[in-house]
Amino acid sequence: MENFIYYNPTKIEFGKEKEKKIGKFIKDSGLKKVLLVYGSERIKSNGLFDVVTNSLNENNIEYIAFGGVISNPILSTVQEAIKIAKKENVEAILSVGGGSVLDSSKTIAVGTLYDGDVWDFFGGKKAIEKALPIFDIITLAATGSEMNGYAVVTNEITKHKDSIWSPHVYPKVSIINPELQKSVSKDYLVYSAADIIAHCIEGYFTAKIQPTYMSRQVENIIKTVMETTEILLKNPEDYSARGDFAWAATNALNGTTTVGTSGVSFPNHMIEHSLSALYNVPHGAGLSVVMPAWMKWYYKKNEAQFIRFAKELFGKNSALEGIEALENWFNKIGTPTKLKQFSLGVENFKDIVENLSFQEEYSKEDLEEILKNAI
Amino acid sequence: MENFIYYNPTKIEFGKEKEKKIGKFIKDSGLKKVLLVYGSERIKSNGLFDVVTNSLNENNIEYIAFGGVISNPILSTVQEAIKIAKKENVEAILSVGGGSVLDSSKTIAVGTLYDGDVWDFFGGKKAIEKALPIFDIITLAATGSEMNGYAVVTNEITKHKDSIWSPHVYPKVSIINPELQKSVSKDYLVYSAADIIAHCIEGYFTAKIQPTYMSRQVENIIKTVMETTEILLKNPEDYSARGDFAWAATNALNGTTTVGTSGVSFPNHMIEHSLSALYNVPHGAGLSVVMPAWMKWYYKKNEAQFIRFAKELFGKNSALEGIEALENWFNKIGTPTKLKQFSLGVENFKDIVENLSFQEEYSKEDLEEILKNAI
Repeated sequence: MENFIYYNPTKIEFGKEKEKKIGKFIKDSGLKKVLLVYGSERIKSNGLFDVVTNSLNENNIEYIAFGGVISNPILSTVQEAIKIAKKENVEAILSVGGGSVLDSSKTIAVGTLYDGDVWDFFGGKKAIEKALPIFDIITLAATGSEMNGYAVVTNEITKHKDSIWSPHVYPKVSIINPELQKSVSKDYLVYSAADIIAHCIEGYFTAKIQPTYMSRQVENIIKTVMETTEILLKNPEDYSARGDFAWAATNALNGTTTVGTSGVSFPNHMIEHSLSALYNVPHGAGLSVVMPAWMKWYYKKNEAQFIRFAKELFGKNSALEGIEALENWFNKIGTPTKLKQFSLGVENFKDIVENLSFQEEYSKEDLEEILKNAI
Repeated sequence: MENFIYYNPTKIEFGKEKEKKIGKFIKDSGLKKVLLVYGSERIKSNGLFDVVTNSLNENNIEYIAFGGVISNPILSTVQEAIKIAKKENVEAILSVGGGSVLDSSKTIAVGTLYDGDVWDFFGGKKAIEKALPIFDIITLAATGSEMNGYAVVTNEITKHKDSIWSPHVYPKVSIINPELQKSVSKDYLVYSAADIIAHCIEGYFTAKIQPTYMSRQVENIIKTVMETTEILLKNPEDYSARGDFAWAATNALNGTTTVGTSGVSFPNHMIEHSLSALYNVPHGAGLSVVMPAWMKWYYKKNEAQFIRFAKELFGKNSALEGIEALENWFNKIGTPTKLKQFSLGVENFKDIVENLSFQEEYSKEDLEEILKNAI
């Protein structure tokens, strides 16, 4: 067990109808004016927008609505929202949507209290010293953004997808109502499953020190995701499975799976960020392509852990059989496992590799070999 | 998954030498004067007292030392400390010791800001509205008090052991340095193992709704405790095992194992509290006696979960075999499993049962039947 700090002050409000209390939660924090950030106009037709704004009105919380955040959210949208937040002197950001809306909201919360360009903070170039308080209603279980200090945004001009992390952008209150998540399409459900699994396996396989307790925690999350994804593909209305899936998603990236580990890196995410930034591939779909490819390339560096993975998750006895079983499971649920499913091939390798932001750990040749495994 | 709120704002500072920073952590919170609560004078001979007070001095934190907290801590000690804390106008409580010292410290933190008798709050008789901030260096892994809002104290006049819970008594910062925990005696190590297992199984067996994710989390904690206890009995110096044991102890009662469950009760703890209050039995030792006895009485009410327990923890196929395997393991590590090991027998049943505080759920006959299983 390595030395560590664990601190996660987000309050989770989980369950049915919790979104009706959002106004009260904001009021209880002594705040009176928010920027309400959302994605597509669908939240107006499905009634969620009304539920939220009614709750805000009842609690005398003034709001400015800002819609239009897209998946793989882009910097220009965030910059536009920051301008409005500054002009309107909002005191907090309320995110209503999935991980893209919440990541944008976190970035807006930082940018509103900063005079320069918020992109300055991405990739750890500058330390974040403050942010507006963030509240959210998370409508898609996948990114875990509802209980951590990460946000990922794409600079669409430079074509770079990059991240910030700060203790200041942990949401104050996150509302997770599994019922709000049942309208997700089958495609996005399986992409989300891949995303959650990716959050877990990065640390599980790359950690130099990995307490068994943390391995079992990861295996619990992956088992839960696999069991509940299969249930939800058959019956999207299954509340219990939807709830377990959502809580597994939150736990996959709230810090509890990497406690006491050391040397964790995120190669799958880094490679995928290049796919999303260049070709606007859905994040989870990109990850289900990258993971098996990376695992086949990496497993000899930590073979015992790959054998453990094969045994615990799939009852297999070798590293390669475990990787194959995961790839087969991705195929079974219908999330992509090969680059050609995005109409990409060897001709794109150069662009993908050049876009990557961590070439000190992986050589260009390494990265091309990994990508070859996804042909 | 039942509706729930999860909120745990304690910052964990885990690892070697973290106790040297205690003064800085208190200073960073803008506090200048603490009551330093501890147990026996052993922390003066082993050097910890000096490390702590040096760190306080370096950071210009004034302190009043208050020692003498005993295990199964008593109300009169707490009341005495509250008087001093009030008179000296301390701004925070610093606990240096195990769960008894920390539970006393939490109670002192509440009582210092209250005009009446702090016992008013026990058993939920009165809601806690405020408390001084609490910091701690936890020197025994067992109670999980370092990351929750519980405290248990015995009123030695009425002979009742009772508890408080409040969001106001979560520690601000808890320091867990496994090296400080290696001086624990073998007896207290195995009592602690039983205590941690008890924290997990109460919810695991009594919950009316129990997501599988939570069951696996509990099984992870118990597996970790069993593996590491056996290592530590052979080699108390094993830092890695000590660290895993400590983190399992913290997780057993920080709320993460009962998320989304419903109908959880704590019968083993309630029965044990009677043993401790009347006969000053060590808490963990009392629990290892009560658990198998209660399990044998209760298992038919939730047999599927007991079979799951038997399979997952011991590779057994029936509820009774699982309970027997746990009892055998307690015997193997050397924690008591029968009342006669405390020189108690049928003649004490009346007193034990009458001392209990939850006779609405269990009849006197039920309780006597449970106790009979421990003869």
